[in-house]
Amino acid sequence: MEPTAPQAACFEAGIKFGSLYHQFAGTPVSPDSADSLARAMEEAIENQPYCESVTVAVRAEPLREAIENAGADYTELTGRFLDVSMTIDYEGVTVETSMAMEDGYPLMQVDSVGTPSQ
Amino acid sequence: MEPTAPQAACFEAGIKFGSLYHQFAGTPVSPDSADSLARAMEEAIENQPYCESVTVAVRAEPLREAIENAGADYTELTGRFLDVSMTIDYEGVTVETSMAMEDGYPLMQVDSVGTPSQ
Amino acid sequence: MEPTAPQAACFEAGIKFGSLYHQFAGTPVSPDSADSLARAMEEAIENQPYCESVTVAVRAEPLREAIENAGADYTELTGRFLDVSMTIDYEGVTVETSMAMEDGYPLMQVDSVGTPSQ
Amino acid sequence: MEPTAPQAACFEAGIKFGSLYHQFAGTPVSPDSADSLARAMEEAIENQPYCESVTVAVRAEPLREAIENAGADYTELTGRFLDVSMTIDYEGVTVETSMAMEDGYPLMQVDSVGTPSQ
Repeated sequence: MEPTAPQAACFEAGIKFGSLYHQFAGTPVSPDSADSLARAMEEAIENQPYCESVTVAVRAEPLREAIENAGADYTELTGRFLDVSMTIDYEGVTVETSMAMEDGYPLMQVDSVGTPSQ
Repeated sequence: MEPTAPQAACFEAGIKFGSLYHQFAGTPVSPDSADSLARAMEEAIENQPYCESVTVAVRAEPLREAIENAGADYTELTGRFLDVSMTIDYEGVTVETSMAMEDGYPLMQVDSVGTPSQ
Repeated sequence: MEPTAPQAACFEAGIKFGSLYHQFAGTPVSPDSADSLARAMEEAIENQPYCESVTVAVRAEPLREAIENAGADYTELTGRFLDVSMTIDYEGVTVETSMAMEDGYPLMQVDSVGTPSQ
Repeated sequence: MEPTAPQAACFEAGIKFGSLYHQFAGTPVSPDSADSLARAMEEAIENQPYCESVTVAVRAEPLREAIENAGADYTELTGRFLDVSMTIDYEGVTVETSMAMEDGYPLMQVDSVGTPSQ
């Protein structure tokens, strides 16, 4: 069957998450550069179609620990340093999604799917 | 509302497309290296959860033209050199997706969403 | 032969350029998001060892044209939208490098190699 | 001062290393997909100017351990899973470079710089 509008909206939401993650994973990041990276991630992905808003926060504590444990000045961006939430608006369907740590791993998920009549 | 299984399946399908595109966009590619890149893209993304199969073909003609027009030996991978199809299997829901050129732009889309009872 | 300090300094400079380019190529970019991307690129690469400073400017005119010609709202970051200059400081050797358009292509090059005695 | 040919050769070598690393870091990788990824990395970077040859090996043991420790089926490519060597040939100067683990971190380095008269 052809996808419904809510299904297509969820597909669009997934595209944005995969894009955000794999465009920026591996970027050199430190406490000092975390904010500019988070802003760039938000504004880059908000360019994509149907993407209403993106919020990225770099998790300061795990980032500091990873750098300290490595005896380094910076590390590479990966999912466990990120909290992300995103709102997709596709043909009147609003999809709320987020990425956060669950059982030690970053999990991307759909939090809610809403249609005008709801 | 919480996502249904077909909606979550479409979200998973989108993640794979965004990942594939933004992990590999920008890779130096030529007619000689196109096949190894296509195989690596397929096998890399098939590692991701719920991803049943990925097929990537590099479009030989547009690739050759872009390289020739640039007077170069290679170019950077971008969507107009790719045909991609993917099957996602999530909790019994099968999602077929593809990326191909439409009106001069690469379009990622859900081709079908199937559930066991259908 | 083992590399001299100026040769190792040039190697380090090259690493930073390759990193900057291939980490961020393919990022969705528009006139509105160009500045945050440029800042993030600068601060990310400045984390790397021996990297004294990085300056990134997104070239507004080619970016606007590419987006307009495509009838789109954004495009993907590539070398022809970028002016980059970088200073590397490695064991007392200062290397100045830049990337800019030459004959229609982005060219990365070493502008000067300086040692304390010079 | 303008760079000498050996210095420019080392700059070119660095570009290839930064490109290889940041293009492919973050790619989903498992023991089964490691070989196709290694081949694609080699052939992609060999497209770049002055790049004579690239050899990439995915280190099987650290990869298996990382996946096992995570209770996962795959992980993301990062430097500690890679052994890389590369030969650059620039205006008669041959540069041999490699990346391997040193003190627990992946170190990119110039192994030798050779000129015709040497």
